Amino acid sequence: MGELGTNRSSIRVGVIGGGQLARMMVPPATHLGLGISVLAEVEGSSAARAADAVGDYRDPETVYAFADTVDVVTFDHEHVPQEILLELERRGKAVHPRPGALQFAQDKILMRQKLEELGVPVPSWAAVADEVELKAFIDAHGGRAVVKTARGGYDGKGVRLVSDASEVRDWFTALAEDARGGHLLAEELVDFTRELSQLVARRPSGETRTWPVVETIQRDGVCAVVLAPAPVADPATLDEAARIGAVVAEGVGVTGVLAVEMFEARDGRVLVNELAMRPHNSGHFSIEGSVTSQFEQHLRAVADLPLGDTSMTAPAAVMVNVLGGPVEGPMPVRYAAALAAHPRAKFHSYDKTPRPGRKVGHVTVTGEDLETVRAAAQAAADEFN
Amino acid sequence: MGELGTNRSSIRVGVIGGGQLARMMVPPATHLGLGISVLAEVEGSSAARAADAVGDYRDPETVYAFADTVDVVTFDHEHVPQEILLELERRGKAVHPRPGALQFAQDKILMRQKLEELGVPVPSWAAVADEVELKAFIDAHGGRAVVKTARGGYDGKGVRLVSDASEVRDWFTALAEDARGGHLLAEELVDFTRELSQLVARRPSGETRTWPVVETIQRDGVCAVVLAPAPVADPATLDEAARIGAVVAEGVGVTGVLAVEMFEARDGRVLVNELAMRPHNSGHFSIEGSVTSQFEQHLRAVADLPLGDTSMTAPAAVMVNVLGGPVEGPMPVRYAAALAAHPRAKFHSYDKTPRPGRKVGHVTVTGEDLETVRAAAQAAADEFN
Repeated sequence: MGELGTNRSSIRVGVIGGGQLARMMVPPATHLGLGISVLAEVEGSSAARAADAVGDYRDPETVYAFADTVDVVTFDHEHVPQEILLELERRGKAVHPRPGALQFAQDKILMRQKLEELGVPVPSWAAVADEVELKAFIDAHGGRAVVKTARGGYDGKGVRLVSDASEVRDWFTALAEDARGGHLLAEELVDFTRELSQLVARRPSGETRTWPVVETIQRDGVCAVVLAPAPVADPATLDEAARIGAVVAEGVGVTGVLAVEMFEARDGRVLVNELAMRPHNSGHFSIEGSVTSQFEQHLRAVADLPLGDTSMTAPAAVMVNVLGGPVEGPMPVRYAAALAAHPRAKFHSYDKTPRPGRKVGHVTVTGEDLETVRAAAQAAADEFN
Repeated sequence: MGELGTNRSSIRVGVIGGGQLARMMVPPATHLGLGISVLAEVEGSSAARAADAVGDYRDPETVYAFADTVDVVTFDHEHVPQEILLELERRGKAVHPRPGALQFAQDKILMRQKLEELGVPVPSWAAVADEVELKAFIDAHGGRAVVKTARGGYDGKGVRLVSDASEVRDWFTALAEDARGGHLLAEELVDFTRELSQLVARRPSGETRTWPVVETIQRDGVCAVVLAPAPVADPATLDEAARIGAVVAEGVGVTGVLAVEMFEARDGRVLVNELAMRPHNSGHFSIEGSVTSQFEQHLRAVADLPLGDTSMTAPAAVMVNVLGGPVEGPMPVRYAAALAAHPRAKFHSYDKTPRPGRKVGHVTVTGEDLETVRAAAQAAADEFN
């Protein structure tokens, strides 16, 4: 028991990582009748319902043993080492996204190089090996730089705005001690008016589907609000964002869902900020807001099944993250009040222990008018603060 | 592992029965962050993903042991004996719907008596103890009667249209051998133009929410198509159907989802045919078609949480059952063709082995125009025949 589709002739998708992204793949897998198994890091993970294995995704034998139980391997995060993924492919296992694509989401310097090669606009950047090189970049870019670790960052972690190279001395020291060596990524500080995200799904065969471009609003480096579709300031900007999404998806050969996070700069440029090759926070609205959600589409794409329609189910959908969460426990401890006050809101709890700033869930509201819907979603999410 | 919300402070709902209704409770439980456990009849059931126990629901100790692991007990079917449910309540366990309400869905003769007591219109009926009594009923009703076993029937099983009392001799013989004794239910054959269903959800506190009245189309006694909302012939008919649904929900004191199946008779009467106290085939459209699905609402109601909005997400939703299914295996064996041809259709596979006439899944399409949507849903379901 505890498995879906055991002994039956369905495709089984294996997800490495037991966070909320794996968790939110369980509903569409259940509806479609696809098998899903999760390799979680710990007991009692967010995706515990589907966690058929617990272990370290950096341990090759753990990953190989898990992969043997499924038909295709995909991910809740980008942290599985390339060596392991390449070996899985050598053994004939389907891995989506493929390691050759995933590397661009794993290493921000490789990503910048690839995006330039594709002719996609990015902030001015350099790979810097030491404080001397970083100081030169800072001096050439108005006395400031955004510095990022090439690997391992997320949700604002591994990102610092600096005006002096010594402010990231600890990172250079860590790189010097790392046998793999490496560089930090230095970028211009972009003066942007807002952030946009383009979600694209792509099958191994090359079929792609895109959702409408959305606006994302960050708080302390963490996605707080997503407006779908992005309000139209200049239609050319949204067209450019959609064009960039398509170029990147094809150019890196992603399979599964790709999120391209972009800045809309004050000078009119649309610049790529980050790539994620998995369902992404900017697409959570699609569970209720789209005919096919990003989670269902990711499963279809990695299983090499035809993709679904990505039209909106309503003119507007707004998602608001619950950050931190109720001090008393997971979101359901507040449901008596929250559900009564917000009967149209769709509540999502990740079953995670609250901690300041931690994403413990989200709320989505759909409707006719974006501002009305946004106010309703924010009010519903505020029930958990 | 294999449990959702383990070690956490969420409500855990226990579902007795491992069929597709239990299965379809898993997605909303996952989203809301409510715990869900299933007592399934067999290994590899439709709801296997959530099946934390396997055993016979007619065995008291099996049910009591399962109930000890959850906060509230509810059902995928109506077949758990009253004695067991009453004992659970005596032991202080929350059971929803409560046995005092559920008895009216378990025994069709009790149901008819209760509906008459509530002043709800029903077909002309009698409880008949033997062939002599049945013959009298047939003679008084134009030479025909619909005869039903009081207990255990579903999907057309336990229902016969007869013109001679000897046609149900086997049922009378079985009753005579049953220590509990009992009667058969004889009913007039209603000349109906169509069938309607009213879904109502009710909390223990009495809060109720209703979905729009739907039209159901049966094939060989099995629900084949559901049109939501029911096309308006005479608005008074739909108002009457809604009124009956509310009277029944309140009158029997149901908790959870109640389906009231009705005939729209050629002479204009609206007559109650059947009651089901659980999510029901006539409400599957609500997964995509309603802001709050019947499965989410059932969980909210039995957990005594505030109910959600039941508005339609689109002007029309049509659900078509997949009956029988592909001979090669469960629905996903046909997904390569079906998903490609029907990108807007939402496919639901119950992960059941195909068998002639068996409900193995369903397809829902939502949109602007009922006839267009119906054609699309039918075409998508036909991919599996």
